Amino acid sequence: MRRSIATVSLSGSLADKLTAIGGAGFDGVEIFENDLLVSGLSPEDVRRRAADLGLAIELYQPFRDFEAVPPDVLADGLRRAEHKFAVMERLGATRMLVCSSVSPAAIDDDALAAGQLRLLAERAAEHGIRIAYEALAWGRHVSDYFHAWKIVRMADHPNLGLCLDSFHILARDVDPYAIRTIPGDKIFFLQLADAPALPMDVLHWSRHYRCFPGQGDLDVAGLVAEVLRTGYDGPLSLEVFNDIFRQAASMRTAQDAMRSLIALEEQVGVRAGASVTGLTSPPPPVVPSGFAFAELAAPTGALGGLLDALGFVRVGTHAGKPVELWQQGTARVLVNSGSAESPDGPALGAIGLESPDPAASVKRAEALLSPVLPRMRGPHDAPLDAVAAPDGTEVFFCRTARPDHPSWTDDFSENRRSADAAAGEITHIDHVALTQPWHHFDEASLFYRSVLGLRPHESLELPDPYGLMRSRAVSTEDGAVRVALNVAYVGAHDGSHDLAWQHVAFASRDIVATARRFRASGAEMLSIPANYYDDLEARYDLGAERRRLLRELNLLYDRDGQGEFLHFYTETTGRVFLEIVQRVGDYRGYGAVNAPVRLAAQHARPRRGSG
Amino acid sequence: MRRSIATVSLSGSLADKLTAIGGAGFDGVEIFENDLLVSGLSPEDVRRRAADLGLAIELYQPFRDFEAVPPDVLADGLRRAEHKFAVMERLGATRMLVCSSVSPAAIDDDALAAGQLRLLAERAAEHGIRIAYEALAWGRHVSDYFHAWKIVRMADHPNLGLCLDSFHILARDVDPYAIRTIPGDKIFFLQLADAPALPMDVLHWSRHYRCFPGQGDLDVAGLVAEVLRTGYDGPLSLEVFNDIFRQAASMRTAQDAMRSLIALEEQVGVRAGASVTGLTSPPPPVVPSGFAFAELAAPTGALGGLLDALGFVRVGTHAGKPVELWQQGTARVLVNSGSAESPDGPALGAIGLESPDPAASVKRAEALLSPVLPRMRGPHDAPLDAVAAPDGTEVFFCRTARPDHPSWTDDFSENRRSADAAAGEITHIDHVALTQPWHHFDEASLFYRSVLGLRPHESLELPDPYGLMRSRAVSTEDGAVRVALNVAYVGAHDGSHDLAWQHVAFASRDIVATARRFRASGAEMLSIPANYYDDLEARYDLGAERRRLLRELNLLYDRDGQGEFLHFYTETTGRVFLEIVQRVGDYRGYGAVNAPVRLAAQHARPRRGSG
Repeated sequence: MRRSIATVSLSGSLADKLTAIGGAGFDGVEIFENDLLVSGLSPEDVRRRAADLGLAIELYQPFRDFEAVPPDVLADGLRRAEHKFAVMERLGATRMLVCSSVSPAAIDDDALAAGQLRLLAERAAEHGIRIAYEALAWGRHVSDYFHAWKIVRMADHPNLGLCLDSFHILARDVDPYAIRTIPGDKIFFLQLADAPALPMDVLHWSRHYRCFPGQGDLDVAGLVAEVLRTGYDGPLSLEVFNDIFRQAASMRTAQDAMRSLIALEEQVGVRAGASVTGLTSPPPPVVPSGFAFAELAAPTGALGGLLDALGFVRVGTHAGKPVELWQQGTARVLVNSGSAESPDGPALGAIGLESPDPAASVKRAEALLSPVLPRMRGPHDAPLDAVAAPDGTEVFFCRTARPDHPSWTDDFSENRRSADAAAGEITHIDHVALTQPWHHFDEASLFYRSVLGLRPHESLELPDPYGLMRSRAVSTEDGAVRVALNVAYVGAHDGSHDLAWQHVAFASRDIVATARRFRASGAEMLSIPANYYDDLEARYDLGAERRRLLRELNLLYDRDGQGEFLHFYTETTGRVFLEIVQRVGDYRGYGAVNAPVRLAAQHARPRRGSG
Repeated sequence: MRRSIATVSLSGSLADKLTAIGGAGFDGVEIFENDLLVSGLSPEDVRRRAADLGLAIELYQPFRDFEAVPPDVLADGLRRAEHKFAVMERLGATRMLVCSSVSPAAIDDDALAAGQLRLLAERAAEHGIRIAYEALAWGRHVSDYFHAWKIVRMADHPNLGLCLDSFHILARDVDPYAIRTIPGDKIFFLQLADAPALPMDVLHWSRHYRCFPGQGDLDVAGLVAEVLRTGYDGPLSLEVFNDIFRQAASMRTAQDAMRSLIALEEQVGVRAGASVTGLTSPPPPVVPSGFAFAELAAPTGALGGLLDALGFVRVGTHAGKPVELWQQGTARVLVNSGSAESPDGPALGAIGLESPDPAASVKRAEALLSPVLPRMRGPHDAPLDAVAAPDGTEVFFCRTARPDHPSWTDDFSENRRSADAAAGEITHIDHVALTQPWHHFDEASLFYRSVLGLRPHESLELPDPYGLMRSRAVSTEDGAVRVALNVAYVGAHDGSHDLAWQHVAFASRDIVATARRFRASGAEMLSIPANYYDDLEARYDLGAERRRLLRELNLLYDRDGQGEFLHFYTETTGRVFLEIVQRVGDYRGYGAVNAPVRLAAQHARPRRGSG
């Protein structure tokens, strides 16, 4: 399929937008009228630039409030249209989007609408232009695609067809099933946008919160599958109005958009099966089976005490770099004192994921436009398969200590036999939590979903003392890999730099024992206020002994229909803190209900190791 | 009236919030449960701190999902309530908020709800506690105040009454008129919040967009007048959930909140007339009658060429400071080369407003908590009446060249007779536009409305190439003083500092002559792309001659039902640019439709004088 995007989806000048779109490998572009009007480029300039960048101008948009009006308004509409046709001829564009009218002047009369659209199509035909008529979700009389299709049928002119837009259809919960009744050659254009489920007026939602397919909650792939079954052979074209994308760097947004289309085509292929051809497909996702390690950049000795107190054992040292390997069960932590010191102190720099096929994992990531990291780091290192996540975290694909593949652990001299690492109660890494810059949250969400094949969970808002924090977890089906993506509020005050906290959560099979061990070693856990425990008593009848234990050990508690969750936190060092969790039964969450008390306690404490 | 605020309205720890609330002069506070739970302060600590700060704990809130449930759920609710009563006794709080249930377990049975609430009230009475029952706008079965009042009547217990909340009533467009049928002593509490008109689900709206009365679009004063007519003598208590206030500095938000209540009481007094007593009232607003001057901080010579090209004459020099006075008609510009150089180059530092009574203007501002600036600047200066606006702009109240008052112009030696300043076509300052920091927009809006008595116009969103800009104008009834308040998006890229642009717009009686004069002097106006003019032709039939003139002189054009608007811009110097406007007929706007082309053109130009 040809891939296209509307210029309104990106930030910057029209020249910047075209460059970004061309650079990301699109085949075509929709020129949003306002972008042209405010530009110093003439239509001829735009035409040349687009051609130089290998971009077809697929659509000029939008033309508004044309149909079903009294004669004098019609005359004005036709006059306006002639002006647009002239601009389009200069642009070399042959398709114009006409939105269903929102004007109070419009009359609820399908025959009138059809007659006037036919007139417009006749005029357009004289210029070799085709009209794509689109039902806006908030159109005055025409607000869904089968109504628009009825009018197009009535108008019956070869230069008049439909434009379908996934947002306008799915946002109003209109069933896309009937699309299959439309001949493919009468669908002149297909615009695509996703959106997160938000409870608001559809127009407000559309103007501010659209996002690229795969970043929201609409079933865009299902709709595209319907459209392709008709034989539609025009482009898949993204049209996104998003307050954040308007502010983000256009090159990066264009790449993100392209990633979205690649992932979308793959999903459409799955949905449509053999009935649709011409879809390109990246190598299949390689779902990780667990965490291999978490790598913390920290000065020597900064984290040793903490890890030791949790029962970790320093089992190895890297042969060529100042990196220590700490282990307990299959939970492995690398402490790298050689990486460039962050001004904020210790930070989570990389995660390792167990992959059935590391090379295939990288191929998948590369096909989805993730930056692949150099495979060889040092002359004696084992080869590495790694990519950079959108927030800069390095993601390594590993096969740890398997006979069929070199293991990254081979680079480490064995200080202690790894059997010794089984002394404590910690069994594995339960999850990692990564704070995303506010303008890369959607991109990150798509990365973890499309590149790693993780599934998104519910989107949450967590009240921090200094703002609302958005959080969304992604995980494998079986929960073996869980990543909590947080996005911090912008922060109007000096403490805003506190917001980039990251953490690694370890699963313990006996959190009480881990907490006791930790405390006995003299390490400090995050202290939880007494008021929390008083309230816990009001909420749950836990029994006196258990209550005492929770309070004594600063354990937080949650339960859901499937099980229970116990957790505690270490103090924060630099940007990083550690969490110990115990899942009882089939609890699936992350203790989000306790996030406010954790965040308040963290803000209340002076931080260690901070710059 | 006693004045109170809910802790959830502010950012920070509970201790910070109490300090800020006490510091702003409130009489009382609502303790939001979550703020207590996450705090290291015990309830006794909170009680002591509040007492030390002179704050009564007016309410503990909220208790949820209690009424109209099956027996086992009731038992759990009563158990929870006993826990809350114990906390309240420790706090010294005697009023508890109970929200109408949102639980799926709740049964639609008013008698059951009443019976169970009576039971709760009986238990509460044993602790000397009163229950204030509130209809949430999204309550499962009870969602408006008269339904809640019916249930309270049925329950008929002295310790059960109503909590009214302006948001829950006005957001659903429930008529507050029937409040007058409720006996004042059965209204146990009154919570106040305003909100801007936004098209979304009421719960989402409530959680993110509430603001202080006078900052939004709800008629809070009308509702309060109804409540006070009943004889209600509890506090006026603000309860605001706002994503931005959560991030802002709590001291400042608390001051803003207090300003809102002072202005609200004044409005309520106007609405309720003699039927309500006990309202305090600030000195009445003194509506300004025009602009006296705009003061630009700029190095000597930086702006002289520009002002000269527009036809301004340098009519005076300050006796004791490096300040030049430029004039044309009654438009006066001070160029101050003595103020601390801004790193961004020239900036708009102050505006002067003509006031019928400058001292009374200052008294009004002071009563509304605006910082009053020192009255004497230098030993020989005329006394100044001035306050600081929330964004730091100094606002001077002036009587220019009137026999009844010393004039600020007396400080200036006369270089040229001011009669000479009437050579050009510019007559006066039409408006100034001030960019507000994103977290002070609501505060600024309230300042201009309450302190200066200006009226808000429609809120707009203007697409800039790098984000959406929010804009709202405030003006006097007659348009003599107009201020456009813009709030910039945060900006994710390097050019974000561009956003703090300010401008001064001068009215010309013949914009074509002013533009010609300007251009003839060799000065550069902001160049408007040809595409804009091509499109203007499509939109309006202006005639060939007028079109040619607009295009030649970079004039922008708008019209509304009342008249026409022509305007052009100078290049930007530092943070400042100038605009020349001509209003034809009774056009009331600011040419907002042209803002995108102006913003794009400004981004496209290299800036002069920038740091």
